[in-house]
Amino acid sequence: MLHVFAARQIRNRATLGGNIATASPIGDSAPVLMALDASLVLAGARKTRTVPLADFFTGYRQTVLQPGEVIKEIVLPKYAPARGLKRRADFIKVSHRQELDISIVAAAFCVDTDARGVVRAARIAYGGVAERTKRALRAEAGLIGRKWSEAAAEVAVVLKTEFTPIDDVRSGAAYRRGLVVSLWEKFVTGEASHVHDLPADYAYQGPWAIDEATKALRHESAAGHVTGRALYVDDTAQKRPMLEVWPVMAPHAHAKIKRRDATAARRLPGVVAVLMAEDIPGENNTGPARHDEPLFATDEVRFHGQVVAVVVGESLRACRAAAALVQVEYEPLPAVLGVRAAIAQDSYHTDWHALARGDAAAALAAAPSRFDGELEFGGQEHFYLETQAAWAEAGEDGSITVNSSTQHPSEIQAIVSEVLHVARHKVVVQAPRMGGGFGGKETQGNAIAAYVALAAVKTGRPVRLQLDRDLDMSLTGKRHPFLAKFSVGHDADGRILALQAELVADGGWSLDLSQPIADRALFHIDNAYYIPALSCRSRAAKTHVTSHTAFRGFGGPQGIMVIEEVMDRIARRTGLAPEVVRERNLYHGTGETNRTHYHEDVGDNRIQDIWRQALDEAKFAERRAAVEAWNASHPRIKRGLAITPVKFGISFTLTHYNQAGAYVVIYSDGSVQVNHGGTEMGQGLHTKIQGVAMRELGLPAASIRMMTTATDKVPNTSATAASSGADLNGAAVAAACVTLRERLAGVAAPMLGVAVEQVEFVHGHAQERGNANNKVPFAKVCSHAYAARVSLAATGYYKTPGIHWDWSTSSGRPFHYFACGAAVAEVEVDGFTGMQRVRRVDIVHDVGDSLNPGVDRGQIEGGFVQGMGWLTSEELKWDAKGRLLTHSASTYQIPDISDAPMEFNVTLLPKAAQPNTIHGSKAVGEPPLMLAFSVREAIRDAVAAFGKSGDEVRLASPATGEAIYAAIQARAGA
Amino acid sequence: MLHVFAARQIRNRATLGGNIATASPIGDSAPVLMALDASLVLAGARKTRTVPLADFFTGYRQTVLQPGEVIKEIVLPKYAPARGLKRRADFIKVSHRQELDISIVAAAFCVDTDARGVVRAARIAYGGVAERTKRALRAEAGLIGRKWSEAAAEVAVVLKTEFTPIDDVRSGAAYRRGLVVSLWEKFVTGEASHVHDLPADYAYQGPWAIDEATKALRHESAAGHVTGRALYVDDTAQKRPMLEVWPVMAPHAHAKIKRRDATAARRLPGVVAVLMAEDIPGENNTGPARHDEPLFATDEVRFHGQVVAVVVGESLRACRAAAALVQVEYEPLPAVLGVRAAIAQDSYHTDWHALARGDAAAALAAAPSRFDGELEFGGQEHFYLETQAAWAEAGEDGSITVNSSTQHPSEIQAIVSEVLHVARHKVVVQAPRMGGGFGGKETQGNAIAAYVALAAVKTGRPVRLQLDRDLDMSLTGKRHPFLAKFSVGHDADGRILALQAELVADGGWSLDLSQPIADRALFHIDNAYYIPALSCRSRAAKTHVTSHTAFRGFGGPQGIMVIEEVMDRIARRTGLAPEVVRERNLYHGTGETNRTHYHEDVGDNRIQDIWRQALDEAKFAERRAAVEAWNASHPRIKRGLAITPVKFGISFTLTHYNQAGAYVVIYSDGSVQVNHGGTEMGQGLHTKIQGVAMRELGLPAASIRMMTTATDKVPNTSATAASSGADLNGAAVAAACVTLRERLAGVAAPMLGVAVEQVEFVHGHAQERGNANNKVPFAKVCSHAYAARVSLAATGYYKTPGIHWDWSTSSGRPFHYFACGAAVAEVEVDGFTGMQRVRRVDIVHDVGDSLNPGVDRGQIEGGFVQGMGWLTSEELKWDAKGRLLTHSASTYQIPDISDAPMEFNVTLLPKAAQPNTIHGSKAVGEPPLMLAFSVREAIRDAVAAFGKSGDEVRLASPATGEAIYAAIQARAGA
Repeated sequence: MLHVFAARQIRNRATLGGNIATASPIGDSAPVLMALDASLVLAGARKTRTVPLADFFTGYRQTVLQPGEVIKEIVLPKYAPARGLKRRADFIKVSHRQELDISIVAAAFCVDTDARGVVRAARIAYGGVAERTKRALRAEAGLIGRKWSEAAAEVAVVLKTEFTPIDDVRSGAAYRRGLVVSLWEKFVTGEASHVHDLPADYAYQGPWAIDEATKALRHESAAGHVTGRALYVDDTAQKRPMLEVWPVMAPHAHAKIKRRDATAARRLPGVVAVLMAEDIPGENNTGPARHDEPLFATDEVRFHGQVVAVVVGESLRACRAAAALVQVEYEPLPAVLGVRAAIAQDSYHTDWHALARGDAAAALAAAPSRFDGELEFGGQEHFYLETQAAWAEAGEDGSITVNSSTQHPSEIQAIVSEVLHVARHKVVVQAPRMGGGFGGKETQGNAIAAYVALAAVKTGRPVRLQLDRDLDMSLTGKRHPFLAKFSVGHDADGRILALQAELVADGGWSLDLSQPIADRALFHIDNAYYIPALSCRSRAAKTHVTSHTAFRGFGGPQGIMVIEEVMDRIARRTGLAPEVVRERNLYHGTGETNRTHYHEDVGDNRIQDIWRQALDEAKFAERRAAVEAWNASHPRIKRGLAITPVKFGISFTLTHYNQAGAYVVIYSDGSVQVNHGGTEMGQGLHTKIQGVAMRELGLPAASIRMMTTATDKVPNTSATAASSGADLNGAAVAAACVTLRERLAGVAAPMLGVAVEQVEFVHGHAQERGNANNKVPFAKVCSHAYAARVSLAATGYYKTPGIHWDWSTSSGRPFHYFACGAAVAEVEVDGFTGMQRVRRVDIVHDVGDSLNPGVDRGQIEGGFVQGMGWLTSEELKWDAKGRLLTHSASTYQIPDISDAPMEFNVTLLPKAAQPNTIHGSKAVGEPPLMLAFSVREAIRDAVAAFGKSGDEVRLASPATGEAIYAAIQARAGA
Repeated sequence: MLHVFAARQIRNRATLGGNIATASPIGDSAPVLMALDASLVLAGARKTRTVPLADFFTGYRQTVLQPGEVIKEIVLPKYAPARGLKRRADFIKVSHRQELDISIVAAAFCVDTDARGVVRAARIAYGGVAERTKRALRAEAGLIGRKWSEAAAEVAVVLKTEFTPIDDVRSGAAYRRGLVVSLWEKFVTGEASHVHDLPADYAYQGPWAIDEATKALRHESAAGHVTGRALYVDDTAQKRPMLEVWPVMAPHAHAKIKRRDATAARRLPGVVAVLMAEDIPGENNTGPARHDEPLFATDEVRFHGQVVAVVVGESLRACRAAAALVQVEYEPLPAVLGVRAAIAQDSYHTDWHALARGDAAAALAAAPSRFDGELEFGGQEHFYLETQAAWAEAGEDGSITVNSSTQHPSEIQAIVSEVLHVARHKVVVQAPRMGGGFGGKETQGNAIAAYVALAAVKTGRPVRLQLDRDLDMSLTGKRHPFLAKFSVGHDADGRILALQAELVADGGWSLDLSQPIADRALFHIDNAYYIPALSCRSRAAKTHVTSHTAFRGFGGPQGIMVIEEVMDRIARRTGLAPEVVRERNLYHGTGETNRTHYHEDVGDNRIQDIWRQALDEAKFAERRAAVEAWNASHPRIKRGLAITPVKFGISFTLTHYNQAGAYVVIYSDGSVQVNHGGTEMGQGLHTKIQGVAMRELGLPAASIRMMTTATDKVPNTSATAASSGADLNGAAVAAACVTLRERLAGVAAPMLGVAVEQVEFVHGHAQERGNANNKVPFAKVCSHAYAARVSLAATGYYKTPGIHWDWSTSSGRPFHYFACGAAVAEVEVDGFTGMQRVRRVDIVHDVGDSLNPGVDRGQIEGGFVQGMGWLTSEELKWDAKGRLLTHSASTYQIPDISDAPMEFNVTLLPKAAQPNTIHGSKAVGEPPLMLAFSVREAIRDAVAAFGKSGDEVRLASPATGEAIYAAIQARAGA
């Protein structure tokens, strides 16, 4: 059991006694020790006593331990098989992920039978089904003295009613009730899913052999990341004394504010200021697209946790204490929670946006087969390692410097300038590396930055704020949950003929980016499939939860979710293999069959090439047979196999966002500083762009320094989002480098005695093109340029060509190109528990001519696993009052390292240089996330194996263990 | 006396008792009170006693005060004239400047005569002539009972030997001996120089009426300067915890270092590091031009105070204590001190540079009159209000940020990169405003920045260092003292026919900028005069004092010093008025008579226009007559009047320094950030350039933010020096603005419905040229530009056209243009004391079409007064061991506000737009300093009035009171 108990780091520090004493109702060690009949030796100051573990727990988090008493020893009876007894024993843990997770249910079994097969001893202990770890005494009693072969099955019936587990954030009661029996059955049958026992072994496999130095660059912060030397926003804040901030949060999802009074709070020692809306010199707003996000709630609360005031003080302790003293009087109002409620109450942020091709209604009516469907699926917490953080310091003349963990420094600048009522030139926003962004720092840092900026101006002192994880999850928006309704027409060959769909996104309390996200879902409802007739529309609902926001894929995954659901339903209904149905519907050929529903040509047939290569590399046909063979011989452990494609449109759909600036300076010693408007969030943007500059200037990595992103270096930037970071900023940097190179060529030409056109820059030199014998060091050219008074500073600028989109006519060409890929996933599903593990993934992905294969591979792997998390383990839950229940690492499970595919093969599509992009490369940030649909479909494939073919296989999203368990139950019952 | 006693601020805080108790040998109040026969009531814990002030002082800084005793009362006998006595009393203070200065000699006299004129009481008290304030008892005795009319003169003879004053840093003994008698004579004769009694009344006279907003801008930091809110380097350092630095300084001017040991120092609590040469990762050098300046002395000391090590610690106290524990063993060596010693020992940094016109030797031989001469004159301490300061913080990956009070951020960057052995792109130098530079921060900040940078890297913590005034004066170089030898040929009309001259500058211990400074002296040896035949050369001597460096004028003043000396000598020898001789020799006409000795055309006849206008505005002829009338009636108080011209070449003589970059960004709200490579040192560069940007973009001041100068904004910059700041950087900024304006015009044109050429930017709008009814706000154009994806960032670049210079052939065109001016000064010299005061100055100066008349006026006034300081009160003194004696504000006197001319009229030459410069303006930083020669020549004119005409009038430079006194004595004796 040990490898699923906490995680290696915790196991190396923690104690078994501590785990027991904490008296968790689950506490994985307790069921095991109970099943092994352990006793505890408890030592007090004066006496020592021994207590059976079964008697140790007295209630929820309560034990018989007296004050001053400690657990001194754990005594296990010696197992003595010599007496002819045979012991059956096992421990089974059910959790959302493999490691570092609290069990939903944990069970330990220990049954001793004699030579005749009669049960002589039985101890069955469960965690997670009651207020404390408990023995199943009735079941145990039903075993003792009876033949194991007979009693084992009968006891399952007893177990069904032995416990009455509850619903909680971790799972529903029904799942737990089911597990009590299933785990027993798993123990009894011995049918095992060994993949869950295999240790995590996900290691870096050494460098790839890459000739070109620019492509072989290691991530510029790699050493900093693993040594902890890489500085993040709050690391720099911690280097100096700053004031702290703590928010006063509303305890209602929807309420009127009748009174706000900070008098008492302001008097507390250590409190420097309590700020509310009245303290804002400018606008009480941090909304990026619409001014609907007050920095401080004034008369209405619109989500649980909304900030009414912030306390600024010398210590967090003082701030927290003062926050508790801020008096706010609320009048609770009914809250709109969830998309269905919003639809019922006609609560929306936006009007419908629609896309259409042909006459979908007619095509639907004419289709040989048709069906209607509905799918509601969940959002996703970004769970960046570094939570939202900012610090600010006021300068002279109303100026302010803000250091922000943001993907969008220019927007932070704009918001701060509006809140402070100063022009933007007074605000400098610096954005050092982020510890992850994923879209969660495109707009969600606005308020954080505004709080510290306002506080810095009001107090005249530097102010820092980094949200703790609970605050971060409670305050910031997530990936949008959606409700989709669709009608599909198809033929018997599985070809889709018509699609009508309505997508409604849960936008949360404010508009934020919900409009373009709902748009992008529409743009991606085709995924990689040609849909001859289509009529789809999308809209953002307004509810009383956090304002949902950008998240890797930005609505694309939600659109693709729908069509992949449709594809599977077509497959199940036609009885065709899903991979066959998908392949038949892929974009292909030329003209209309290779043109999207918004009339943009897909352009080439890479999807087809990728698809075939993925099937080949995965040995799909061979493994399809192997999976079928496995499933035939395993009643409760099934495997599933699936392949899904991805086609993702690259460009911001708001055309003017597709611009980028750069500023490159070369010093007279030949060293270079590169500034661009993109932000580094761990995705390797700086590394890629360093490579671009190296290539353009012919310099080694050491000559190129990537500078901290800052609004006073490159103005009016777009968010680093939409996968566009390298495309846009790389091209801008290249443009600046070309300008400089051309100037330097003019200096080098006379030095080399050649014409300007004959100068090339390679390997740290200017040389005669093709003649390495005639060269001068780059540094020498630069010092000559300086002496010759040639400017060595240049801006670069890039705007994506040929794109435009107009929603008023739903026409244009929204995307510069498409990034495509395909993934084959194989999973193994444990029917006893609903738990699954991804056995193998084979990806073929098109990154064009990669700027940096190592970085791209990291993005593909990371994006895939993050997509898996969204589709499997990560489940957001709110209670009936609109309070987020999953606001911590213990209740919200992103995949950990041992959830990664056991075998993970990633191939970058070869010979894939993309015309008209930076060095032939393609964007890679978001598209791979959607390759994870292969996992969802593989799970569905495995679930399907629990029942007969020919039926739709319903699977909730996320497909948690609980959902899979329920799907299997439904399927098995069907 | 009060207005010359300390200064208003001190008088408002100090007490009379304190002044007495300090027992200064001078202590201005003591002579007065002694003369008034004061007694002190001294109160102890138990008893109170009364002591005559005459008995109070017992020795140097010693009194009769017992421990615990304080001065409780000062008792003055009541003066009762009713008894028929007549009292004569006066107090006379001789000091280097009017206010805030310690007396050289102070005297108080009180003589009571009866109705018959017989002296009944006499008290004569002197300060500054002995170890304590003393009564002249012998002289007093010589008066009592005798007729005042007879005894007064005789007593002067007694006084001659009454005291035996010493030489010290404040003056020579001879001067003091002379003053003892002169002050008595002044008292007796009652001949007064009332100008010394007039209070300082130097007030800002309100704004000038200027239509154009760009020219009327108030200094951007004006409010910050007067409120203290303007942040300087160390202000930002003080905002956070940083380590401190204290140097270990060598106590010899020249020595071998035999051993260095910091073991004991390193052990002291609070010490973090003791750094020596061995701790430097890169080069142990901070020399800008030649690598001859070790950051830490290793085996040889080359000036008194040279740094051998620095202690880095938690507090200055700890650092100082540790510095005292660093053991360094020296073997003293003979030091070369002064130019004459260097010449004698053939100790030079450089070879001769020479300029010639015609055959000077032949012309000299043929001249009707000829004479040889020699002039040795002193240097000048920069005495910037803000001493050298820097702080540094190490970043990631070997990067470092340095905040430096420097005129030359790029050089700080280069030096730090060399010392740390990292490429320049790793070093970012930020240069916020300086509290004065004057050339003293062109190179002299190098070591300061290198210390903190090295310490920051070595300790991993931020480190600050601001030199205190004594350290600053002891460690940093000053204006070069020079020795000039010359041979002059002229005719009877005073026209110079030939000049041969050799100028040797005292370069100090390292080369620094001595070469171009010696060069510039050569380039300016003509000042504004046509010299038909000339052969001059200059060279920098190597001595064992601080390394002399750039100072406003950069050798130009030293060159001009020589020719103005020559002009006066010609005048005195020919008996012509100096103004006549000067006028006759001015450049004039066209061709050769308007061409310099380096064959550059002066170009126009502005010098002639300026000269005439200055004579007119000053009413020169009228006042010449008035001065003569005054002098005829005042035997010991004389006035002098003089006019001198200035012609100053504008450009760095090292051609490639004449370049500048800028980076201007506009935000989509229409606000603008301007970056350029120049540094703000109070001279108003940012204000001028803000005006340039306003004018180019048609925006109000609030729309333009001037950003902190930083090497990562604009690379490879030149020092802000050579008066070039606005010329170069202004043009670069204008270029960037033009680029942006043209882009924006393309956006605005369709908005206005006009052709691009028809768009103009005025008053915050883009409008149809000449049609204010068709306009759109600038901000709107910018937001449209952003939406249209038009880059709003642009670099600007400027290199001065048409200049080049080659010393190998002494040919080229070194200067872009000349800045000219003329000043008329009138002084009053007190023959009793040598003290002078400038009664009136009239300046006509050519700043072209001024960018900002207020700022230019400030530069003219400030430069003039600083030049006055150099030429009059500021005297650098070293002792025989090469230790600087004048290393504090109490021993080195810059002019204070009450030394400014009593009437100060400045006229900017009208209609003076200069072609081919930024907005028609001209450089103004240095040229006005040399207008102060008018004061030196006016003093000489006054001194001349003490003797007969026809003789040369020798006057040392600086013309301190002591020097003037000596010149008068020599003159009167002649």
